[in-house]
Amino acid sequence: MKNPLVVPELRELINDKNTQLLKEFCESGHPVVVAELIAALTPDEAWQVLRHADHPLRSEIFSHMDIDLQAELVSLLRREDVARLMADMAPDDRADLFKRMPEERRESILPGLAYAEREDIRRLSAYEEGTAGSVMTSDYALLSPGLTVAQAIERLRWEAPNTETIYYAYVVDEFRKLIGFVSLKDLILSPPGLKINDIMHREVLSVQIDDDQEEVAGMIRKYDLIAVPVINGKDAMVGIITHDDAIDIITQEYTEDMEKIMAIGGSHENAAYMKTPSWQHFRNRAGWVVLLAVLGLVSGFIVQKFEGILLQFTIMAAFMPMLADTGGNTGSQSSTLVVRALALKEIAAKDILSVLFKELKVAVLLGLLLGIIAFGRVFLFGGGSLIPAGFSLGLIGIAIAVALSLQVVTATLIGAVLPILASSLKFDPAVVASPALTTIVDITGLLIYFYTAKLILGI
Amino acid sequence: MKNPLVVPELRELINDKNTQLLKEFCESGHPVVVAELIAALTPDEAWQVLRHADHPLRSEIFSHMDIDLQAELVSLLRREDVARLMADMAPDDRADLFKRMPEERRESILPGLAYAEREDIRRLSAYEEGTAGSVMTSDYALLSPGLTVAQAIERLRWEAPNTETIYYAYVVDEFRKLIGFVSLKDLILSPPGLKINDIMHREVLSVQIDDDQEEVAGMIRKYDLIAVPVINGKDAMVGIITHDDAIDIITQEYTEDMEKIMAIGGSHENAAYMKTPSWQHFRNRAGWVVLLAVLGLVSGFIVQKFEGILLQFTIMAAFMPMLADTGGNTGSQSSTLVVRALALKEIAAKDILSVLFKELKVAVLLGLLLGIIAFGRVFLFGGGSLIPAGFSLGLIGIAIAVALSLQVVTATLIGAVLPILASSLKFDPAVVASPALTTIVDITGLLIYFYTAKLILGI
Repeated sequence: MKNPLVVPELRELINDKNTQLLKEFCESGHPVVVAELIAALTPDEAWQVLRHADHPLRSEIFSHMDIDLQAELVSLLRREDVARLMADMAPDDRADLFKRMPEERRESILPGLAYAEREDIRRLSAYEEGTAGSVMTSDYALLSPGLTVAQAIERLRWEAPNTETIYYAYVVDEFRKLIGFVSLKDLILSPPGLKINDIMHREVLSVQIDDDQEEVAGMIRKYDLIAVPVINGKDAMVGIITHDDAIDIITQEYTEDMEKIMAIGGSHENAAYMKTPSWQHFRNRAGWVVLLAVLGLVSGFIVQKFEGILLQFTIMAAFMPMLADTGGNTGSQSSTLVVRALALKEIAAKDILSVLFKELKVAVLLGLLLGIIAFGRVFLFGGGSLIPAGFSLGLIGIAIAVALSLQVVTATLIGAVLPILASSLKFDPAVVASPALTTIVDITGLLIYFYTAKLILGI
Repeated sequence: MKNPLVVPELRELINDKNTQLLKEFCESGHPVVVAELIAALTPDEAWQVLRHADHPLRSEIFSHMDIDLQAELVSLLRREDVARLMADMAPDDRADLFKRMPEERRESILPGLAYAEREDIRRLSAYEEGTAGSVMTSDYALLSPGLTVAQAIERLRWEAPNTETIYYAYVVDEFRKLIGFVSLKDLILSPPGLKINDIMHREVLSVQIDDDQEEVAGMIRKYDLIAVPVINGKDAMVGIITHDDAIDIITQEYTEDMEKIMAIGGSHENAAYMKTPSWQHFRNRAGWVVLLAVLGLVSGFIVQKFEGILLQFTIMAAFMPMLADTGGNTGSQSSTLVVRALALKEIAAKDILSVLFKELKVAVLLGLLLGIIAFGRVFLFGGGSLIPAGFSLGLIGIAIAVALSLQVVTATLIGAVLPILASSLKFDPAVVASPALTTIVDITGLLIYFYTAKLILGI
């Protein structure tokens, strides 16, 4: 951007009531960048800048602000200003903001809007979060099959300023049923006299209004689409979802997945890290951590049960942390790979046997390697610990090495199986990944450890 | 798709040499879907199907196949067939395939291609992986500023079949320097007699040829772009990167991030889970796991050093796994949140103090909660263990609870600091997340555990 104004300078302009420069500031850069700079001000100051932008630029800058800031700003404005601001927003952004407003504010805003906008907002904000309906927009170009190419271009020329994309236009019959589409490229390339009916593509990829937004984004990704039409239960066209929405959905779902893997609860839809209050962070994180800590007490009971062995072979206590960590690490690796492969649809629940076979091969290699390292460690540095008469350091080393190898194999296989099981039970595979898995393989690991020791050492 | 043919039926058609039905099969569905179905065949059979598709459909279906399968298929074909196939491919896909071919094959293919294509392939395949140059395509529409709108539309009409997108056309001067752009929408909306120079947008977002592909994808995401132009060191336009490339880059980078967090090495560029051989999986995973296991031996030495305490208070051994796990879990949570916030540019290295303050508040709450749970567990179920004379179960419970609380606070803060430090040292924050962190907080946790016990129990 050419205008390197920053917060103090903006404040000065506001205090000086320098209308002209504030207007120029709003026009000086990409609306995304202007929105970012304004966001550093207080909501009241932000409005003192923004109100100098002409329409529809004002609404465009406003749309690029964080939705929480939008809601806060709107709560300070007069009803007329809000109505004016919302009238020029994209329908999907407008509906999102509407959903964010308190009930009484919604009721006071609606009468200020035109009938069509009001109905549009009501309709778009009615769909459940996470569905195609909740992310679609109602700005799209419609054509009827009987138009000529020249008429269609003329039509789009009229409609274009108000639609999100005119790069695809959708062809519907008299019941608004989706029967085909043409791209603007098709229109430009076709002889002007041909009928839309003759040039349109009849096989249209579309999604249902209650489809999961993640499925929709996956479809846009797979078929390299600019937009995908949304139809209702009666096959009537009701909206479109565009490529930029798909990127946002993919980013949001990935963040949620990663947090689930790390046992963090809560939705991440609009909650940026710094803006989420500490108390909310605590609530998001405490649930799983406490549950896992309670589950972790099981490992305590196991250790208590085998206390006798630890008292006899204190060197075994020294290897407990490494056994737990290595099991957790190898299990996390296989579960992460499987969770990601499931998310990208590279594998499905039916592939469980081939996944297990593959993981078994990897696990045996890893187990052997780590077992050898553990044996070396015991044999080289174990001399300091007390060893009961009749047992050699070598035998203890073999017991620990075998236990570690078995632990690696078990943890890897559990890590691969749990997400697949979760997915076939319609749970999100991500929640059984890392921390939950770590706690589980700790328990299995300790049992393997003590029973292997008993067997090999004959105690 | 309307034609539910499956592998056995395709094989039958191949055996019967049923040219007509094989051709119809290729035309029966979206090229993405046809490519998926063909991919289930052997490379030789795949070609027996694919060769019945007309050009350019044949190249389009081929482009949607996995790049490894493409390379394998190409190695079976006659030179003329390969040249024909590559001639109709998108320049970026073609360059990717070229890079995948063995050296001698490349040399034998090039002479079969037209001069322009040959130069294009040479140029596009020369850029380093991961840069804007390596993902851009050379199919884009150029306009000069002196054209009228009507001339520009006519020009695009001629060029359109050969360009990836005509939705944006780029305006360059006589030195190919990028000076503006117009969207097809602008052209449709403007009076036909106006000059491009009068309607073009002069502030063009562009990227440098050696910019990181992740930065480019982030820009497309931030500004909701359909395409972004790529310029070289002399400001001359050399290519574009489109919205679908951005989605692929983002998806690929997410997978790599997640694998780094789980201590899995290797590049994930084209390696799908099932297609990566077990041996490669082993190599990707073994490095970090072994390193961490070796580092984990440090915790073994610490336990050995404090063996005496464990022999005296066996109940403390029972709580070691829970202490390790809880530290790992709370540390992973904070590191994941910080890694993600850094990746989405919600925070930067300079925010370290406010992040630490926020994490401290969360950590104290979590620490208190978990400490109380641990005390309860010791007090209620600890009776079974041997306790040396002169020590009460309550005092031991307090020692364990305090140690756990301190461990949670330390682990949370370490989890937040490490990624920020890594990022300010220009390392990827993701690699210091989960498993590496778990191993580190195990070591700090054991030290906290034993020293707290010594202090509180006075031993």
